[in-house]
Amino acid sequence: MRKVLAFDLGGTKFAFGVVAEDGTVLGSGRVETLAEAGPAQAVQRVAAAAQQLLTELKLKPADLLAIGIASPGPLDTARGCVDGSPNLPGWTGYSIEGELSKAFGHLPARIDNDCNAAALGEYVFGAGKGKRNLVYLTISTGIGGGAVIDGRLMRGANGNAAELGHIPLTMDGPRCGCGNQGCWEAYASGTAIARRTREALAAGRPSSILKFAGSIEQVTTHHLFQAMAEGDALAQDIWAESINYLGRGLGAVINTFNPDIIVVGGGVTAAGDALFVPMRAKAFAYAFPRLGAVCAIVPAALGGNVGVVGAAACAFEAAGSP
Amino acid sequence: MRKVLAFDLGGTKFAFGVVAEDGTVLGSGRVETLAEAGPAQAVQRVAAAAQQLLTELKLKPADLLAIGIASPGPLDTARGCVDGSPNLPGWTGYSIEGELSKAFGHLPARIDNDCNAAALGEYVFGAGKGKRNLVYLTISTGIGGGAVIDGRLMRGANGNAAELGHIPLTMDGPRCGCGNQGCWEAYASGTAIARRTREALAAGRPSSILKFAGSIEQVTTHHLFQAMAEGDALAQDIWAESINYLGRGLGAVINTFNPDIIVVGGGVTAAGDALFVPMRAKAFAYAFPRLGAVCAIVPAALGGNVGVVGAAACAFEAAGSP
Repeated sequence: MRKVLAFDLGGTKFAFGVVAEDGTVLGSGRVETLAEAGPAQAVQRVAAAAQQLLTELKLKPADLLAIGIASPGPLDTARGCVDGSPNLPGWTGYSIEGELSKAFGHLPARIDNDCNAAALGEYVFGAGKGKRNLVYLTISTGIGGGAVIDGRLMRGANGNAAELGHIPLTMDGPRCGCGNQGCWEAYASGTAIARRTREALAAGRPSSILKFAGSIEQVTTHHLFQAMAEGDALAQDIWAESINYLGRGLGAVINTFNPDIIVVGGGVTAAGDALFVPMRAKAFAYAFPRLGAVCAIVPAALGGNVGVVGAAACAFEAAGSP
Repeated sequence: MRKVLAFDLGGTKFAFGVVAEDGTVLGSGRVETLAEAGPAQAVQRVAAAAQQLLTELKLKPADLLAIGIASPGPLDTARGCVDGSPNLPGWTGYSIEGELSKAFGHLPARIDNDCNAAALGEYVFGAGKGKRNLVYLTISTGIGGGAVIDGRLMRGANGNAAELGHIPLTMDGPRCGCGNQGCWEAYASGTAIARRTREALAAGRPSSILKFAGSIEQVTTHHLFQAMAEGDALAQDIWAESINYLGRGLGAVINTFNPDIIVVGGGVTAAGDALFVPMRAKAFAYAFPRLGAVCAIVPAALGGNVGVVGAAACAFEAAGSP
């Protein structure tokens, strides 16, 4: 069975694994990124650790098809590097793609945005198996996206496609990290839901959320879910608003991509049916009926493996397989 | 040189042409659609007229590669038909694709949404030649879109992808034809710009627009452009707001698709540089800088031919050529 070497670059951890073409992770590991110390030391250490893994698995680079790398954006795919990624200062211009290729017998290597890699991972190995048009969405610190169009990952002109968290919901509204106001993620990411909860508490609305969180400053969506579970009115209001924002954005995603399936991951999906059931209803109410009718909205299947498995899917795509 | 037969279905006219693979229209014609009389009579008459054209050009169906059909949406591409198109009542379920194929020696036929066909037309034969990732946008009665992703038309699960006019700009705001409030096209289509102008005039703001239009009810974007040209303050305010709405939506389009080029057509583009120069500046201000930096925003090149030439591009794509 064919195999690839996959890397999942993050600001704190640099994970890697050998993945077979059925999606099985044959072995994996991780090193500290030590992002502030620059890319050369991190790539050198992760390559050494991955080489060690290959030795344990009795594999040589020639036994592998390709290398895939999932990385935080923005990227410059033409140069195979990150391009101004806030959590990877000093990494811009360093060809992670080229250096990892060199370290493993010049295997073909490909870098992709981590959300885009997750989209292809869910498409090939996860919740989207057998579909042709998939949108992946992560609702966590921000809202990130990726899209597979008729079986191929949408990468865009320089590898930065599907920044779906910046679909507008309002022309003004809360300031977003991107500099605009009123972006989807400024209303409906986990961070934004927690912020809106804190604002409501600070405005003096009574709620059992404080009992769980201890203080307003410490409120997270976890405390919101706890208070909702015992019927807290403020928590339910904040959640209903959040569902409405999520539905409006998903309606736009459906109208934009006409997907067969939207796969949703990220920390906020811990809410389970309390998220998916009302969110689907709102999304389909906002979307064109004929587009909503053919679109499933389901939880992500790959879980914590999504980084490495997504990067592996990109490596297989780069190699023209499976 | 290879040739296709292309049809451009509209609520009032059903145009057709024979198009060569360099985009040359070798011959064309049109019949009345008489949409209310149903699809069979229209397809029969347009097929007869197209057959006549083939005879004039000394061509047989076997000299053609395929048939392309551009049609108003929504579509059901699996059945090759329109699916609830408001201007084609009674046409749902009638396989335009199948009937036109049958009429011309069972040539392969393919139906596409007219904006999607326009996108592929501009990509293959128009302003997008040589680019890989293109978004087409028409700003006219509504705002319609189409996208070519890495060289292939994005059709979606049932042929209805790229309904970009329904990207939200606000959660409330003006009612849109789709049933939602605050959609992009409810603020920035030609119709919406004229409506916002009439509302401002009805609120009593003085303006020379009335001099050109005669009465508030008759105001169109044409009168707005006339008043702008002589420095009318209200016209300039409405236009600046419109540019801001257009820029916010284009920013979302850039962040969603990371395109090399956005090709803009439709009646509002008659404003020329008065539209494109400030609209580009706003779009790039709202988009992520690294995505805006690689994206051109240019006027459509195909003009009135876009329907037939777009359908021809779809026919060539369906046939795997050029």
